[in-house]
Parts: sequence; C-alpha cells; structure tokens
Amino acid sequence: MTDLTLRAWAYLSRVVEPPCAELAALVNGAGPIEAAERVRRGQVDDVLARHTEARREIDRAADDLELLARRDGRLITPDDDEWPMLAFTAFGSVAVASKPQGRPPLVLWAVGPARLDETAQRAAAVVGTRAATSYGEQVAGDLAAGLAEQDVAVISGGAYGIDGAAHRAVLAVEGVTVGVLAGGLDIPYPAGHSGLLHRVASTGLLITEYPPGVRPARHRFLTRNRLVAAFAGAAVVVEAGLRSGAANTAAWARVLGRVVGAVPGPVTSSASTGCHALLRAGAEVVTRAEDIVELVGRIGELAPEEPRPATALDGLSDDERQVYEALPGRGLATVDEIAVGAALQPARILAPLAMLEVAGLAERHDGRWRLVRNRGGTG
Amino acid sequence: MTDLTLRAWAYLSRVVEPPCAELAALVNGAGPIEAAERVRRGQVDDVLARHTEARREIDRAADDLELLARRDGRLITPDDDEWPMLAFTAFGSVAVASKPQGRPPLVLWAVGPARLDETAQRAAAVVGTRAATSYGEQVAGDLAAGLAEQDVAVISGGAYGIDGAAHRAVLAVEGVTVGVLAGGLDIPYPAGHSGLLHRVASTGLLITEYPPGVRPARHRFLTRNRLVAAFAGAAVVVEAGLRSGAANTAAWARVLGRVVGAVPGPVTSSASTGCHALLRAGAEVVTRAEDIVELVGRIGELAPEEPRPATALDGLSDDERQVYEALPGRGLATVDEIAVGAALQPARILAPLAMLEVAGLAERHDGRWRLVRNRGGTG
Repeated sequence: MTDLTLRAWAYLSRVVEPPCAELAALVNGAGPIEAAERVRRGQVDDVLARHTEARREIDRAADDLELLARRDGRLITPDDDEWPMLAFTAFGSVAVASKPQGRPPLVLWAVGPARLDETAQRAAAVVGTRAATSYGEQVAGDLAAGLAEQDVAVISGGAYGIDGAAHRAVLAVEGVTVGVLAGGLDIPYPAGHSGLLHRVASTGLLITEYPPGVRPARHRFLTRNRLVAAFAGAAVVVEAGLRSGAANTAAWARVLGRVVGAVPGPVTSSASTGCHALLRAGAEVVTRAEDIVELVGRIGELAPEEPRPATALDGLSDDERQVYEALPGRGLATVDEIAVGAALQPARILAPLAMLEVAGLAERHDGRWRLVRNRGGTG
Repeated sequence: MTDLTLRAWAYLSRVVEPPCAELAALVNGAGPIEAAERVRRGQVDDVLARHTEARREIDRAADDLELLARRDGRLITPDDDEWPMLAFTAFGSVAVASKPQGRPPLVLWAVGPARLDETAQRAAAVVGTRAATSYGEQVAGDLAAGLAEQDVAVISGGAYGIDGAAHRAVLAVEGVTVGVLAGGLDIPYPAGHSGLLHRVASTGLLITEYPPGVRPARHRFLTRNRLVAAFAGAAVVVEAGLRSGAANTAAWARVLGRVVGAVPGPVTSSASTGCHALLRAGAEVVTRAEDIVELVGRIGELAPEEPRPATALDGLSDDERQVYEALPGRGLATVDEIAVGAALQPARILAPLAMLEVAGLAERHDGRWRLVRNRGGTG
C-alpha cells in the first residue's frame, strides 16, 4: 500500500464518528484517495457533509501514522489480507445493517504480533462487569486460561474486573488475547491497566477503530462492543449486574449470529443477576472452558441471521415487545418502573432492553431509559 | 367409609409393591372389598398372582389402621374427597402410563392437618442433594419461606440437606409443607429428622403410599419421587450433584407436564453441577421465590402431555437418544464412560440418564448404568 493510500485511510478514519454508512459507501465507490479528496473539499452529498463538516479540515494522518509506526503498529484496511472479512460477514444482513452502528469499521488501528484475521477464526469473547467479585475474577481467569490452552484466542475490552482477569490469565499461560479499545491506541483505558494493555499489545493484539488521541466515551464503548462480539465465535458473560454493559455485548453477539453464553453464579450475588437474566433469555450455560470451545467450534455451522425487513419492530421477541411497549412516551424510566409496566421482573428486562438499545429503539440516559422515536442517521 | 372397606384398602396397600397396574385394574372393576377377597384367595390372573403371592396371606390391616388412628392419621383413598384427583390427571396419558411406576398410588397414608387435594392445587416441590452446601441450604430456606409467605405449599422428601432446609424454613414462617416419604409413616427417615418430620406432620402433611413398617429402599425413593413431582405445579432443584436423585424428581416433573426449575450456583461448586445440567436441558432459571410462584401459577394453563404411542424410544430428545445409544449392550458403564460414548460432556448426560431411568430404558446399579432390554411387568 502506498503512503498516499495509507494516509487517505488514516484521514478518513478521523473525519467521521465511526461507523458511518455514507462514508463507507463513498469509499467503496471511489476508493480511499478519491474519497478523502472529495470529503476534504466538501464535494459530498448533504448527509455525509453533515457527518464530516466538523472535522474535514483536520488532517493528522501523517502524525497518526508516525505514532503508529513508533509503536510497531499497523493500520488494517479492507485492502489488507489481515482484514477479518469472515468476522464481518454478518454485518451484510439487512437485519444487522438496519441497526445503528450495525456495520463494520472503516479501518482498524492495531498493535501486536497476532494476525487479526487468523485470530478471529478461533476466538471467544470473555466479558463482564467491572464490579466483579473474587468468584467472577477467578472463573473469568479459569475460563480464559482454559480457552488459551485450547488455542482459542480470548477477546475482551480491557476493563477492570472480568475483562482484566481474562486478559491476565491468558497472558499467564502465554496464549493469545485481544483487547478491543473504545479510544485511540495511545490512550490506555483505564489508566490503571496501562501495563496490562501494553502486555496484551506485546504478545497478542490491541485494536480499535478510533485514531490516536480519541478518548473513550460512553457511546464509543457501546459501538466498540459490536467488534468484541464480531471478532469472536461466542461471547461469554462471566458476571454482570442488572445494568451492566456486558449485556450490550451479548446483544450484539446475538444480533451477529454468535453464540451467547453466561456463567451461572450464586443467586445471592448481585454480580450474577445479569448472567441469570441472560440464561433466562436463552443464553448457553457456561461452566468451564470446554463449554465455550464447543460453542466456538460451531461458528462455521452457524447460518447468518436470515435477512428480514428492516422495520424497527420486526423480529422482536415477546419480551422485547413487552418491554418496548412499557417504555414511557415521554421522559425517562428506571428499570424498575419499566419492569412494572411490562409486568416482568426487573431481572427479565435486562436482555430485552439491551436488544432494544442495539436495535436503536431504546436509549439509556443516566441509568434510565427512554424510547427512541425518530431514529437519526447512522453516522 | 365402612371399617370393612377401609380394611380392604389397607390390606391391598400392603399386598403388592406399589404401584401395580394389575391390582389397580382389579380394584377399579370389582371394588376394594371384592378385590381384597379375590387376592386373598388367589383368584386372580397369573400376573397379579405373581405380584401378590408373597404377601397375600399377610393381613395387618387392623393393626395398621389402629396405628394410624393413634397418630391421628387417615387413609386417603380414591373414594375420598381429599383424593388429589387433579394432581394425578397426568398419569392418565399413554406416555406416562407406559413408564414403569407411571401410575398413581392405590391409596395414601397421611398424617397432618393440611388437606392434600387443596394443598396440591398450589404447591411447589423444593428438592435437592443431601450433600448440600451452606449456600444451598440458605437458598432452599429462602425460597421455601418465600413460597410459604405467598401461600404456596412446599413439597419435599424429608431428607437431609436441601429437603430439610426447605421444610424447616416453611415451619419457621408457619406455612404449609408436605413431606412425601419412601416408607411407612411410623418409620421416620432419616432418623435424625424424626423431630422435623413430627413437626411437618403436626402443621402440614406427612404422606406415603407405603403402609406402616415398610422401610425406605432405593427403589422406593425413586418411586416416591413421582409423587413429589405430582403433588406440585413445579419442581425446583436447589442443589444437586451430577449423580443426585433430585434429577429423578425433575425427570418425573417433566414427564408429568410440570415445570422444572433449577437454581444456579457457583460453577466452582460440585453441588450445583446437576442444576447447571438441568438448566442446559431447558429447566427454568430460578433465583427467588417469585420465579416459582410464577411457574406454579401456570399449572392450570399447562396442557397435559400429548398422548403418544407407547413405543419405548418414541419421544426421546436428541440428547436422550444419543445417551441411550451410548449405553453398553452388556455390563455396566460409568457416567464418564457413557459421556465419552455419547460424545457429550458428563454434565450434559445427567438429565438424559434420569429421563431414560424414568422411561424404564436405563437403570442404575451401584452408581453405574445399564440398558434395560426387556422391560418386566409394572408391579
């Protein structure tokens, strides 16, 4: 790849908040150099103009690539052999593409010796709450180490708690682990995991769709979660409270046709409430690494979700529809309030809420929920 | 009911090892007095003669009834209003009747102020391993007390561990609990639970199909388990090892069209392995009493299992068939050996084995399993 092409990709990576359907379409048609040029000059349609106007005059591509080179990193683009084409196949279905954020990244910023395309062919996501118990961290570690020992790469989000326990256990047995970040490679997050993330990058892979300097933010964690799910054949939630972000990763995994697993725990532990809610919603019971290896082994056999009409309410389960209908027409509602409205127990509406969020039908705001009435653009 | 009729029932209750289809048919046709007379004289067909020859000359009916009266007990027969007709409806289906022990009891020996027919209309079975952990006993107690507080009777087997914790918790909140015994009312089992069983009998109900003096035995526990399942709208397993008898109760519950629930626990606890296996096999996730109340509430809506041809292998699930085919043609196999043969994890074959046992297709012998080739009579 020429420097010019690489710089075009780097420019495009920063000019929108990813993922952006309109930019992807432009690049597909015109190629990265021409696309970058048109965006820079503002010669794009109205929608894309709106998505790019704030940043189109910013070009840090040379600096970004230099920073990447200093870290021995690389920009993985759809033109590279390493581009994990198979992992992104599910984004091709109408059902997925109709969801906000339901599309592959434009490019991936990466550091680490593992090859993403190969790694993603035999990988499992091990995720969970930051507020993990010692039980949860122990189980996450056992599962992750067991997976690594059976040559399954462990994908996670680098967070405190379950994510960290999973990464650490894989490093301890010298397996391959991949950290998917919600910000730039130069912004280790959380800061307390700088050392851990550095070790992940040294032996496995640290990866993100955000260019250097971009700080993690709530919406970026949710956007990032789809990649954690996409890079793995199965997503296993080890511990999750009722309001944990891990449910969002699980919902993405389901939408992308991945197997969702959850680890049972004491019913007396609030850190397992989310897992039990997922099990109620049909997640596989995971008690040891072998269970996951078996699930990951099924990737090849999994049919991608049937394309279906992109109408927002189509394809909702009974529970999801019930929860959807219980969301208030105006204002925000707590989980407990929605539960009352839906005549379901709070523990039963976690998974439906996460699905509705992924489907763009509900959104969370300060821990409360509201209906999304008019869905905006996809950028 | 006349003394003569009562004595006939008591005689019939001891003359066979229950349940016995042929004796039930005779009583149905001829009435208890005439049936008792014919059995006594040996004027019955060959099959029933074989089932009754060892005991037909034993008549302790008067003594048994006197012992029962001294304990303020009663013999509940199909002629009584208290006979729990509804609880036994499911035995009417071909699928159930074709299974060994798949029929209602002839009579029930009972002590306690609760009325069985009314109690069984809103009841849940809370069962589990004798080798319970403190976590299991705590959860069993919480669930049982919660059920009692919501006017759901708690059925259990009076054993150490989970059963005992469930009974005790109900007594503590002055709810109704029913102990179903695998031996005579005068033989408290286990002996260490004499006091507990006495309290159950004083406030709830102690019940058995065995006449006084009959000692619990392994096959009687398995036979008894169908009644634990039948008297409840849902059966919840709180803790169970991989080889626990609670799986047998759960299998009966499924066969009888009851809801089966299981409580998740730490995956690091072997006492929860059986529960996780049940969850894999489709049991409902139970984390608190409300979950069970909801399940019990569905009793009325549950359609009894569709009658289906009584061919032994009909209606087996894929897992059950796989396990069936992995049972050795001769000799006995351990769970681990069968698991290898079935290409399933040991934790996944518990529920199928329990179902095959209930279906009379497999039997356990000293902890190992074998195929049942020629099914004998049903007595």
